[in-house]
Amino acid sequence: MQVEDRLKELKVTINKKVPRGVTVTDVEFEGPEMVIYTDDPKRFAEDHDLIKTLARDLRKRIVVRPNILGDTEEAYDMIKAVVPETAGITDIFFDTDTGEVLIEAEKPGVVIGKNGSTLRDITMKTGWTPKAARTPPIPSVTIKQVRQYLRESRDERKEFLRRCGKRIHRDSIYTGRDHDQWLRMTTLGCCRQVGRAAFLLSTPESKVLIDCGESPGATGAASSPYLNVPEIYPFNNLDAVVLTHAHLDHSAFIPLLFRYGYDGPVYTTPATRDLATMLQLDYLDVNNKEDRAPPYSSNEIREFVKHTIALGYGDVTDIAPDMKLTLHNAGHILGSAIAHFNVGNGVYNVAFTGDLFYGKSRLFNPAVSQFPRLESLIIESTYGGSDDFSPSRVEAEERLYEVINETLGRGGKVLIPAFAVGRSQELMLAIEEGMRNNRIPKCKVYLDGMIKEATAMHTAYPEYLNTDLRNLIFRDNYNPFLAECFEQVDSYDKRQQVIFSEDPCVIISTSGMMNGGPVIEYLSNLAESPKNMIIFVGYQAEGTYGRRIQKGWREVPIGKRGTIVINMEIQTVEGFSGHADRKQLMNYVQYVQPKPERVFTIHGEESKTIDFASSIYKKFHIQTVSPQNLETYRLV
Amino acid sequence: MQVEDRLKELKVTINKKVPRGVTVTDVEFEGPEMVIYTDDPKRFAEDHDLIKTLARDLRKRIVVRPNILGDTEEAYDMIKAVVPETAGITDIFFDTDTGEVLIEAEKPGVVIGKNGSTLRDITMKTGWTPKAARTPPIPSVTIKQVRQYLRESRDERKEFLRRCGKRIHRDSIYTGRDHDQWLRMTTLGCCRQVGRAAFLLSTPESKVLIDCGESPGATGAASSPYLNVPEIYPFNNLDAVVLTHAHLDHSAFIPLLFRYGYDGPVYTTPATRDLATMLQLDYLDVNNKEDRAPPYSSNEIREFVKHTIALGYGDVTDIAPDMKLTLHNAGHILGSAIAHFNVGNGVYNVAFTGDLFYGKSRLFNPAVSQFPRLESLIIESTYGGSDDFSPSRVEAEERLYEVINETLGRGGKVLIPAFAVGRSQELMLAIEEGMRNNRIPKCKVYLDGMIKEATAMHTAYPEYLNTDLRNLIFRDNYNPFLAECFEQVDSYDKRQQVIFSEDPCVIISTSGMMNGGPVIEYLSNLAESPKNMIIFVGYQAEGTYGRRIQKGWREVPIGKRGTIVINMEIQTVEGFSGHADRKQLMNYVQYVQPKPERVFTIHGEESKTIDFASSIYKKFHIQTVSPQNLETYRLV
Repeated sequence: MQVEDRLKELKVTINKKVPRGVTVTDVEFEGPEMVIYTDDPKRFAEDHDLIKTLARDLRKRIVVRPNILGDTEEAYDMIKAVVPETAGITDIFFDTDTGEVLIEAEKPGVVIGKNGSTLRDITMKTGWTPKAARTPPIPSVTIKQVRQYLRESRDERKEFLRRCGKRIHRDSIYTGRDHDQWLRMTTLGCCRQVGRAAFLLSTPESKVLIDCGESPGATGAASSPYLNVPEIYPFNNLDAVVLTHAHLDHSAFIPLLFRYGYDGPVYTTPATRDLATMLQLDYLDVNNKEDRAPPYSSNEIREFVKHTIALGYGDVTDIAPDMKLTLHNAGHILGSAIAHFNVGNGVYNVAFTGDLFYGKSRLFNPAVSQFPRLESLIIESTYGGSDDFSPSRVEAEERLYEVINETLGRGGKVLIPAFAVGRSQELMLAIEEGMRNNRIPKCKVYLDGMIKEATAMHTAYPEYLNTDLRNLIFRDNYNPFLAECFEQVDSYDKRQQVIFSEDPCVIISTSGMMNGGPVIEYLSNLAESPKNMIIFVGYQAEGTYGRRIQKGWREVPIGKRGTIVINMEIQTVEGFSGHADRKQLMNYVQYVQPKPERVFTIHGEESKTIDFASSIYKKFHIQTVSPQNLETYRLV
Repeated sequence: MQVEDRLKELKVTINKKVPRGVTVTDVEFEGPEMVIYTDDPKRFAEDHDLIKTLARDLRKRIVVRPNILGDTEEAYDMIKAVVPETAGITDIFFDTDTGEVLIEAEKPGVVIGKNGSTLRDITMKTGWTPKAARTPPIPSVTIKQVRQYLRESRDERKEFLRRCGKRIHRDSIYTGRDHDQWLRMTTLGCCRQVGRAAFLLSTPESKVLIDCGESPGATGAASSPYLNVPEIYPFNNLDAVVLTHAHLDHSAFIPLLFRYGYDGPVYTTPATRDLATMLQLDYLDVNNKEDRAPPYSSNEIREFVKHTIALGYGDVTDIAPDMKLTLHNAGHILGSAIAHFNVGNGVYNVAFTGDLFYGKSRLFNPAVSQFPRLESLIIESTYGGSDDFSPSRVEAEERLYEVINETLGRGGKVLIPAFAVGRSQELMLAIEEGMRNNRIPKCKVYLDGMIKEATAMHTAYPEYLNTDLRNLIFRDNYNPFLAECFEQVDSYDKRQQVIFSEDPCVIISTSGMMNGGPVIEYLSNLAESPKNMIIFVGYQAEGTYGRRIQKGWREVPIGKRGTIVINMEIQTVEGFSGHADRKQLMNYVQYVQPKPERVFTIHGEESKTIDFASSIYKKFHIQTVSPQNLETYRLV
């Protein structure tokens, strides 16, 4: 049956099931959801079992929406008029996907009103369902931008969601018994290497791309996944793209897909959507600064945002006639996810870990390791080598405190090159607690580069943080990111001031591998004095300045700046990585439930993926593969 | 540079190199060859080094052709007029690909004339280069048909060869250093199963399909390779199809490619072209008789013939900008070949064995096992299981003589179900020699089904037969296929006569698995008498009548014929297979030169391909893979 006919039939069925007097005016597939439009949304809201019963009977995710959603500009004015000014509204965001309007305010209680009277008033007057939220403690430019993109593209997005909904709910082509069923995974990058993640999952019905990242440090064709092979090109044959997390080695080339004909959904968490947007915009910026023609423009980043369907952890979502996707916490960075696919009504289940951390960090809970079903596990192997054991986070912090104490004690400055997303926030929390508990002296901690913006996003999505940190912020009302030790550097003058001040301090600055960014400015001024110290906390790739300095070079030629003579002390503190080490990886494979039939080791140097695969086979007797790029494996 | 410009430049270069007075009027790529058109082909012919020098300097296969090739009808009349009638001309075949005209005659000496005078006369008068050949001792309907197709499509074929030549000699897209080079093999069928052979070899430049066969006994989608996956479909992206041998599990679906848009060359031996044509036409016939809609018509078989570029064993041939193909004897059936690919100017070399026999048989030499280079070997595994040891051919023949003697001795008839191509001829030769050497009594050996036609083709291509047999036929002037014991059955009446005659005899009849064909007629009439005997000499697949009878069923319901009660004796004589047994396969891997880095075991039941792969790894320490269907492996 055609989708249109199915929708008509559904409308008749639903109208028979709803109580008298309630009229369902329209039924639409919008993205993965079935939306019931009605003149009387309240009746649906009151009879909660009704939606449940419908969802169960029709086996669909159901959303009920008022028939007439007021114009957003009118509604905006209306909300401003209804809510008392004392609420301190900072943003009103209309989510046309859900019919909800998010009202962010300094005092959300005032927005809600006595017993919710103000909210009810808003519903009555605008048709929108209001939600009140506290204004995030640090404003994020990116989130503002993303919301604006979504606002501007409201109509386009509605059209997209309906088109996408129809595609997801299309009839299966191969229903006959005659047809061979199969599920295949094709590796388009990220095998026996770190970077350019891109995997294709395909069945006779559908095709889904998981990640599409760059290879850091590589140039030309080798920097992107293999996107010109017939398995994936032309892109308009893809049913869906799934993004596991925001780092550029997973996300950089997703906008490119839209440039070359992709017009479908990108499923990811809301936090990943926003972080990826920030990193992609920065990627363009870096390309421009280094006189490289970027492969796409900010237009395509907008397209990415417009085409994103945001999913929370645990939402089971139809993404194709024969595939369901569920995202689960991966513990790696804010919003990072393991992508679990249920194929052919559970006939086969496969999980892509993306990047993984299987321990408790200051920010996140450990990666989820329990799934309803699981036959194949595709797992990262960054630290999968037999020697890749990291110190525990506690040991790492002890060591960090030690070297900071040393430096501050002798009146020096500490310079920590760090990635904006993930590692910086872990460091901030460790240093803040160290000062609070008097493990290190109180001093200024300057943040330079995109760190502040990334931190702002962490405070905007508290639901992703682990319980301890969330409790600290919301129950104990103490937000460590706002501690007074932290100070943002956002101008040339301020940077000079930090550099030439007499006071000992800590500076956390991007880029993490000292390949550019403000950290170079600090380096060239602080390098001279042996009182100062660089602390490396992350992997320094071959060919970067960071790697050279770490290896012991004492004269480093840095482009136009000439040669920098390094007299400052150099230390490396291991254990702050966002990646599971060898022990965590082996533990993950041991504890993942249910036990998979097959494990593919990817996202690691050749020797590490092979060693990890062979160790899994020896220890757990699970069939393992360390695939190469451009291969296809039959899963079913 | 565009191909057209290159050709113009080549013409200038060549005109500079040829002796004064000789004019090269045109240079064309026709299929894999570079053809030099001249008004004075004789001068080229006289100065043999000239062509050699050109070929070496230009690194091309060069053919010189007279500028004006006479009209074939005129030339036909001319030849008939010039050659004395006593020559007994039976066929004149104009090969427009080569500019040669093949004159088959009872007395080829008369066609040649005194010191070649008649041939020279023909060249002068027609422009064609004549070749005289003895009329094959048994006329083949199929070869006649094939020649007629080629004759009819002369102009079309010329156009095709030029188009194809331009495609082969196109510029490489990826010449920059920036580009990742790769070579991949995709399995579209024939993995962990016998049948539906189809493999794709692809590089960033080009795509070549090796074989495209049916899965015998399977129905619906499972009977054909996976042809609807993006790696291969649409077919017009293919550069070439290579056919290893004629059996339907390798050739049945090649005509289908032409139905769905393929318009390129099929590289194979001339014998395989003709045998495949016969078997494909029979495939249509069987489909029609069994009321199944055949997937294509005889039109597409004609297209296959028209698009075939016939190669001899050992011809190194450009088939794409970055691939050279060489076919080598595989020892399996007439014209069967190992396809060796040299990719990227020898950067990588891979050989597909097709079906293999690595021992001397009565008909053929053992498969070739020496290659200039070899990194990956894709080898069949039909008898790759650890128990798959066959008796030697000598032992098999001893046993055959024994059971024939028994039956004839008691006045019974021997019925041998056999495949038309390959096994029947081996049996004929064994039985004929047995009678000649008085190992078995002289009696009639009746041939029913396509056996005679297949035998005719063996006599038309003596160059494929092994040295002993060729010597016997041509030096000793004794053609065992023409021995007086053999008698063709080609009518219902004749068949009845054979069945109801009192005389003991041997009957070899198709089909080989007793699933249809005239053998059923014999069975239903000979089954009653315990004096008679069925001898199985080939593999009987599950589900066939042959398998049931072999297993010991004594009452066999055969469709409309009702139930046949089997009183005749049942014997199986092993050792006549055209496939290497386990020992030969292991020997092949041991002796193949150079030693490959990787071996893929295909074309065998799941347990056999896995066992064979693991044994190769254990014994020879070569990396092995037993792939599944629909997988892709990276070779480079």
